[in-house]
Amino acid sequence: MSYLEKVNSPADLKKLSMKELEIYAQEVRAYIIDVVNKNGGHLSSNLGSVDFTIALHYVFDCPNDKIIFDVGHQSYAHKIITGRRDAFEKLRTDGGITGFENMRESDCDAFSTGHSSTSLSVGLGYARARDLAGENYNVISVIGDGALTGGMSYEALNNIGESGTRMIIILNDNNMSISKNVGAMSTYLGKLRLSKRYRSLKTVFKSGIDGIPLIGPALVKITERAKSWVKRQVITNKMFEQLGIKYYGAFDGHNIRETVRILTQVKSGKQPVVLHLITNKGNGMYEAEKDPEKYHGVEGKAEQMQKYSSVVSEKIVELADRDDKVVAVTAAMLSGTGLTAMHEKYPGRCYDVGIAEQHAAAMCAGLAAAGMKPYFAVYSSFLQRAYDQVLHDVCLNKLPVRFLIDRAGAIGSDGLTHQGLFDISYLLQMPNMTILSPKNGNELKEMLDFSLTFDSPLAIRYPKGYHDIIPNGKKFSLGKWETIKESKNRATVLAVGNRMLELARNIDCTLVNACTVSPLDVGMLSGLNRKGNLVITLEDGIISGGFGESVLRHLRSAGIACDLVNLGFADPYCDKLSVASAFASEGLTEENLRKIINSYVAYGKKTLE
Amino acid sequence: MSYLEKVNSPADLKKLSMKELEIYAQEVRAYIIDVVNKNGGHLSSNLGSVDFTIALHYVFDCPNDKIIFDVGHQSYAHKIITGRRDAFEKLRTDGGITGFENMRESDCDAFSTGHSSTSLSVGLGYARARDLAGENYNVISVIGDGALTGGMSYEALNNIGESGTRMIIILNDNNMSISKNVGAMSTYLGKLRLSKRYRSLKTVFKSGIDGIPLIGPALVKITERAKSWVKRQVITNKMFEQLGIKYYGAFDGHNIRETVRILTQVKSGKQPVVLHLITNKGNGMYEAEKDPEKYHGVEGKAEQMQKYSSVVSEKIVELADRDDKVVAVTAAMLSGTGLTAMHEKYPGRCYDVGIAEQHAAAMCAGLAAAGMKPYFAVYSSFLQRAYDQVLHDVCLNKLPVRFLIDRAGAIGSDGLTHQGLFDISYLLQMPNMTILSPKNGNELKEMLDFSLTFDSPLAIRYPKGYHDIIPNGKKFSLGKWETIKESKNRATVLAVGNRMLELARNIDCTLVNACTVSPLDVGMLSGLNRKGNLVITLEDGIISGGFGESVLRHLRSAGIACDLVNLGFADPYCDKLSVASAFASEGLTEENLRKIINSYVAYGKKTLE
Repeated sequence: MSYLEKVNSPADLKKLSMKELEIYAQEVRAYIIDVVNKNGGHLSSNLGSVDFTIALHYVFDCPNDKIIFDVGHQSYAHKIITGRRDAFEKLRTDGGITGFENMRESDCDAFSTGHSSTSLSVGLGYARARDLAGENYNVISVIGDGALTGGMSYEALNNIGESGTRMIIILNDNNMSISKNVGAMSTYLGKLRLSKRYRSLKTVFKSGIDGIPLIGPALVKITERAKSWVKRQVITNKMFEQLGIKYYGAFDGHNIRETVRILTQVKSGKQPVVLHLITNKGNGMYEAEKDPEKYHGVEGKAEQMQKYSSVVSEKIVELADRDDKVVAVTAAMLSGTGLTAMHEKYPGRCYDVGIAEQHAAAMCAGLAAAGMKPYFAVYSSFLQRAYDQVLHDVCLNKLPVRFLIDRAGAIGSDGLTHQGLFDISYLLQMPNMTILSPKNGNELKEMLDFSLTFDSPLAIRYPKGYHDIIPNGKKFSLGKWETIKESKNRATVLAVGNRMLELARNIDCTLVNACTVSPLDVGMLSGLNRKGNLVITLEDGIISGGFGESVLRHLRSAGIACDLVNLGFADPYCDKLSVASAFASEGLTEENLRKIINSYVAYGKKTLE
Repeated sequence: MSYLEKVNSPADLKKLSMKELEIYAQEVRAYIIDVVNKNGGHLSSNLGSVDFTIALHYVFDCPNDKIIFDVGHQSYAHKIITGRRDAFEKLRTDGGITGFENMRESDCDAFSTGHSSTSLSVGLGYARARDLAGENYNVISVIGDGALTGGMSYEALNNIGESGTRMIIILNDNNMSISKNVGAMSTYLGKLRLSKRYRSLKTVFKSGIDGIPLIGPALVKITERAKSWVKRQVITNKMFEQLGIKYYGAFDGHNIRETVRILTQVKSGKQPVVLHLITNKGNGMYEAEKDPEKYHGVEGKAEQMQKYSSVVSEKIVELADRDDKVVAVTAAMLSGTGLTAMHEKYPGRCYDVGIAEQHAAAMCAGLAAAGMKPYFAVYSSFLQRAYDQVLHDVCLNKLPVRFLIDRAGAIGSDGLTHQGLFDISYLLQMPNMTILSPKNGNELKEMLDFSLTFDSPLAIRYPKGYHDIIPNGKKFSLGKWETIKESKNRATVLAVGNRMLELARNIDCTLVNACTVSPLDVGMLSGLNRKGNLVITLEDGIISGGFGESVLRHLRSAGIACDLVNLGFADPYCDKLSVASAFASEGLTEENLRKIINSYVAYGKKTLE
């Protein structure tokens, strides 16, 4: 029986010896590689986190102690240790467990994470609650060096330092967020890692003490403590100390024995501490260590789809060739959003600002105010972080910032926290914002061509990919929708984006590509003015305040007589782990669409309102 | 003729001698005090900024050089210098100039600011654009130490440090944001200010050189330079330097002569620099220096209104008395949101986190997850900064965080950037969120009582004040609306909040207090099911995705036959400088309401859709 099979809880883990923990770590690693290769998921970061996660569970007691994994995509070992080993087989699939820390899955998950840089704030909330309630549990926030570039981390550190409240911050430093980490803070941490004095002292100790055989365990212990003390003196991180947070590090996050010892020490502290652990993303898997960005997110069984990011990749370079005012910005998503080629060809015109969407959007506003043509490529869910900057800095000033919003709509296996369902609704409410959604890659190219000379805030939103089955046909023109096919059955489907068009393409209806989400094609809407006409809006986003309701508003104010059904996400809480199940749960299926149209045609009346 | 009258542009200012600049500064200060006492506005921060603003315009050339004032509420002297001296008489009034830096007012305003912590990101945008275009202008971001607590500042510093791009950051350090500044960063800056070594060196120089009479100007110059150099060596701010930004300071921001000299020095730099200026908020006005928080925002001619913050002030302490799980959080708005009394009585249960709305919301999520009852009191416009945390950390986890949303709706003289028009729409789209809006102070009390045991995300939104003319009547009950008065004319007005009720109270209609914005009172809506009924929704917020449209959605899905008119802000771009003119521009007037109802009653048909 393997240790993997033996350990069903943190209590089981505590029974193992240090040697056994190391074997267990290897087994966990192998299991993670196995499942992720099958189901997809985050590989590199999880392989890097196995060892210190085991150390955490050896020293602390979940669920009494609270461990908050920032982002939570590195919590696989934690899930496996805390009773979800078998459930882990169905990671990130319908009916299975999620890829992030999740309060609904286990009481060992102290919080539901997903977006970056929340763990310090949430941890401080826990720590303050504990102090007020006179309880005594430990609060441990595990945060990567990448997540430290998010401004909220700093807001929290600033507050934690002042509070003096006891909590433990594990800085899991692998010098990567998703892409290579960026920013001055990263450079600074890099210096700490490479500090000559630290390295030479380490060497001294290595040869001076570790090298001597047959030292009794007690002496080793004392010496090790002394070693830690020396390290502390040498490497004390001024940045954290200046914020009032005690700093310990840097230590090898793959040495379970040492990590256990240090954790045991900091556990007894009375104030906030940062424990700086150095880890390798992809540790224990050769390919993943060599190319951690590639193995950051691994896809499960491949879907036959074209990626919009490939279109962006090619087209943005072409735009930059044509117009030297074009610049591109990403928030730690260079490869995901398709900007790698741009960064290679024009490194001075492609900025990776780190996990810092607020800054990215506001900097784009500054670039646009100065006459540049900035493109901010970002995932829909993460753009939520910059809601205020899009509204306050870009839209109120009517500045021509181009938002390339990837992973819009239902997200699939990343689930609840990563849904891109909100962007249409909140962008529709912002002044001066124009919103587009392409039917396929070719139309995205046309939209990007159009964007080059468009002089107002612009959002182009699209999911990860498309199936390239909607024909090219009419060339994109702002505010003009395209009739993909016609039917005489008096049902017109206004579909936003390729997914909705693909959903409706086999239905007997007049199918319209509502490529411009805002402003509406009021000419085409006027043409629908006839009692007995049925109009169905289809959008891959929430209904409240969405495209469909903007159509409804126009029909009412223009006095256009037709019946209208708005389809989309009526329930904004969507925890489905596949796009298909997300759509099915909201009636976004061919079958439902056919039912609505057929019963309307048959009975000549409204079927659903 | 005073210097105030003589200076009509930065060019005029450059003709003055140092001595004359000092006199000019006094005149500008007096003028600001005069206008602000009349029109209201930000007093303390502007008095503190006059001297270094004059120095900036002496050294730099607007509009070619770009000065970005963070928040922009300290830009009054800048406005007066750059051609808006006479227009300044109508500061913050309809038809007059705004209280913040504003691109639409002058080409000397490099950006439109309003919300905190944007100036560094915008400045970096400008600096990068300049470098790419091969231009040579200077970029100066003026940021207060309070705004430095905002996470976006850190995101920007991290990126600026890495970029190495030439820009000048003026750290206007008055040790205040609006309330007394907080956080570890503030403590750290305080240490810099009080550094013994700096002070003693200063003294040495004072007595050793300044004290000697008849030193030639050249020698003074050299000595002064030496002095600056020594200061730099002593006070070098490790925090900025670690982020890769050269630090100079701290200097006296009220010494125009010295500031001019230092600015001239840093102007020739090739990399990003921070220039740390010490200023006094309220400088030159005894009362404002003594109590800068009181004089931060001065109100113009007093409106006869009760303040909701007074209700919060009293009630939150009572709730804290009753339930030791109650904690309160503010983002640098202790007094504005009514938490001062709570902070005095329960300092350990009332947290001012600084200008850090993201952290505040996420920390509240942590507090709630740990079983506490957190209340986050925040202005509507500033809650926009925490959109993602409200959605991702609070609502998806269904955590009982109470948002007390002050200054909701049209904002009045603060204008465009501070409008609280978006909250209903974006909160309605978030899962699990309940939204309330009181008719008067008494109902807010009842809602706060209710909130104590409510176990889901809750938002209570209200404007600054109310006129106490809507009778108390029925006690608040979740999801139950209250009929304030009845009419037989078949017109029903569903009004959200006291302002809308006050607007409609003299109209002949059935007037309903839609105190629960979400969920709707579906029972009452069913009762309206009759052809020929007119329902009008009234809300102090944008129409798109707002309360009115949620009523429409329900009427349609429930098949309720009545006519509906949604009133609110059809145009989310509202730059009016009074609440009355904002309402008038959107037809939110008694007259318009009467017209709609009368024509409907007279002709028995829809008048507006």
